[in-house]
Amino acid sequence: MKPMKLLLVGLLVGSALPAWALDQLVEKKTFEMPSYTTLGGKGIRDVKVGYESYGTLNAAKDNVVLIPHFFSGNSHVAGKYKADDKASGYWDAIVGPGKTLDTDKYFIIGVDSLCNINTKDGVTVTTGPASLDPATGKPYGMSFPVVGIGDIVNVQKALLDSLGIKKLHAVMGASMGAMQSWDWAARYPDMVERLVSVVGTPWLDAYAVLVMQSWADPIMLDPNWNHGDYYGKAEPVDGLALAFKLVNYQARQPAWAREAFGRKWAEAAKDPAQAWGNQYAVEKWQDDASRARAKLSDANNFICLARANALFVLGGKPTVEEGLKAVKAKVLLLPDHRDLLLFPDYSREAGELLKAQGNKVEYLELEGNLGHLDGVVGISQASERIAKFLAE
Amino acid sequence: MKPMKLLLVGLLVGSALPAWALDQLVEKKTFEMPSYTTLGGKGIRDVKVGYESYGTLNAAKDNVVLIPHFFSGNSHVAGKYKADDKASGYWDAIVGPGKTLDTDKYFIIGVDSLCNINTKDGVTVTTGPASLDPATGKPYGMSFPVVGIGDIVNVQKALLDSLGIKKLHAVMGASMGAMQSWDWAARYPDMVERLVSVVGTPWLDAYAVLVMQSWADPIMLDPNWNHGDYYGKAEPVDGLALAFKLVNYQARQPAWAREAFGRKWAEAAKDPAQAWGNQYAVEKWQDDASRARAKLSDANNFICLARANALFVLGGKPTVEEGLKAVKAKVLLLPDHRDLLLFPDYSREAGELLKAQGNKVEYLELEGNLGHLDGVVGISQASERIAKFLAE
Repeated sequence: MKPMKLLLVGLLVGSALPAWALDQLVEKKTFEMPSYTTLGGKGIRDVKVGYESYGTLNAAKDNVVLIPHFFSGNSHVAGKYKADDKASGYWDAIVGPGKTLDTDKYFIIGVDSLCNINTKDGVTVTTGPASLDPATGKPYGMSFPVVGIGDIVNVQKALLDSLGIKKLHAVMGASMGAMQSWDWAARYPDMVERLVSVVGTPWLDAYAVLVMQSWADPIMLDPNWNHGDYYGKAEPVDGLALAFKLVNYQARQPAWAREAFGRKWAEAAKDPAQAWGNQYAVEKWQDDASRARAKLSDANNFICLARANALFVLGGKPTVEEGLKAVKAKVLLLPDHRDLLLFPDYSREAGELLKAQGNKVEYLELEGNLGHLDGVVGISQASERIAKFLAE
Repeated sequence: MKPMKLLLVGLLVGSALPAWALDQLVEKKTFEMPSYTTLGGKGIRDVKVGYESYGTLNAAKDNVVLIPHFFSGNSHVAGKYKADDKASGYWDAIVGPGKTLDTDKYFIIGVDSLCNINTKDGVTVTTGPASLDPATGKPYGMSFPVVGIGDIVNVQKALLDSLGIKKLHAVMGASMGAMQSWDWAARYPDMVERLVSVVGTPWLDAYAVLVMQSWADPIMLDPNWNHGDYYGKAEPVDGLALAFKLVNYQARQPAWAREAFGRKWAEAAKDPAQAWGNQYAVEKWQDDASRARAKLSDANNFICLARANALFVLGGKPTVEEGLKAVKAKVLLLPDHRDLLLFPDYSREAGELLKAQGNKVEYLELEGNLGHLDGVVGISQASERIAKFLAE
């Protein structure tokens, strides 16, 4: 980190050292398209997605690292919008001058997906069922068309076109962000030089389809959902909170719960063996976290995004083998050793197939006690490997 | 198999060979207790649980193999009640004369749990929230007390007492049946000579508590649940069906879904990428199976049994280490290699702890593409090992 930059930021925020790795404030921007036609052939007018960038686009416009986000995330990869923001972006630890994603070298772009679920967080910009339909002036609800990972990627492609970017030094993402990265490498193989798949997979199988369905189902079970027509009325917060509970524990693993909570009761005087309403601390924590999350999110957008995931087949091809044939990028696979959502087997299988067809593939298993979430929270453990991969 | 028995059964059912391994018709019996006091100190009057047996109790009454059942199961381990029953008991493949659980040697008892969920299948006998409260003449609903695995075991103990049985040659069960078996070995160590834990665990950790909560939550989200007061009204079938969906896929693993369904659509003309209501075949199959299952089951009993599981700590001790200290039995561990519900790690950890304290422990990983369910459907692969373990 350069002393002068540190000093400037120190002055800016009124302290000697910034608490976040990316020592610049971040600005959220909005990319707009008058219309977009989905891969399923449906038109969507006035498409908007948010994005943000760190570092500087070089003259050749070939130093870009694109970072699509995970299911419950958004474009906020690093830094803070205001100096007193409580949290910085999710991969802040590896973004900044001299860091793994070196802002002195790379122009890093984080971008909001279509149907992003965080519609009420005040910073996410997205188009999905919660958006106003220009034709009616009311929210789409479930009249919004089904979209897939390929549509999310295509809107990102339009954003890059608008910036004059024709080459990606790398595309890198965690979980659903990795799925988008894979799809980028399959749909636009000549643009993507490197792919970093963090807790990712190049396709979702029939089992994952069931997982995605089970995430959406509780919302539709909530009577407030009302077939998606709840805007301006009581919203299906209970159903959405239950959906987030499934996401929460499935994206973690047993060691986390054992270490963080064990069998502690939520309240010392309320033994769970004595009354139905009595809870363990781990249940209470998850209930509270999921409900808080539900209040910042839109239930229909959640359903939309779960379906986009369920539909994911690489490059829209019938098999993962056919999808992988198109990929030209060098690939770094970073699965988690105890991922219970996107199992490390998915990465291993992808690696074998890519090697067999001659791609350059590297593989490192992330560790930690968070399972799938190690890919977001524990990314620093792979810093050196990522930096080396990006530099080669 | 003895020719004379075969012939008799052949005459009985009108064909030369029985289609099931246990060549005798099975009779469901009912064990009744005037009252039972739970480990939590609550009284339950008129407790009834069903049981059935195969083979003959010897004079010394020391040839008993007790088989508690898994979460969605009941006491029907083997055979048929009527010759034209469509299915035989779940472990029929290994029960019968000359089989692994040899009815010429052993007296095998299957027993229904408290709060068994299959209240409408016509054969299960249980006491739980769906039962009539003698004090009111109406179903308990959620006024039924919280019960644990230890209570289920204690009712089984009373059944064995009533039969004059003081020794168990073995206790063997799959999943929740294994948990009961472990609890037997910890609560009544001098009675249990052998323990066969199939896809089991000697305790549930905080992570499993969250899984159990998520199984019960959809029921309570269904407005028809009405805090458990739905008897004689519309029942929470939608919520219960969603609960069964979670059970269904979590008790399996990806290879099953890939091989059985792949990405086939539910209807050839209905592409899931085109409309929200269009499904993959795997979703439709799971929806139908779960709804059918929900119609045979009671939602409150499901909640009760999920809580009993969540509460499970071995022998009621604060840690699994303390619980295991009481166990004297020889132990055969049969986890599944791809179990996503009761991970093989649970069995490995138990095995290490038992070995360290001097118990005789054997270990064999089940294989197959069904994950946790391999322990029910694929038990035959361990036949030899089980037979040898029981004979030693």
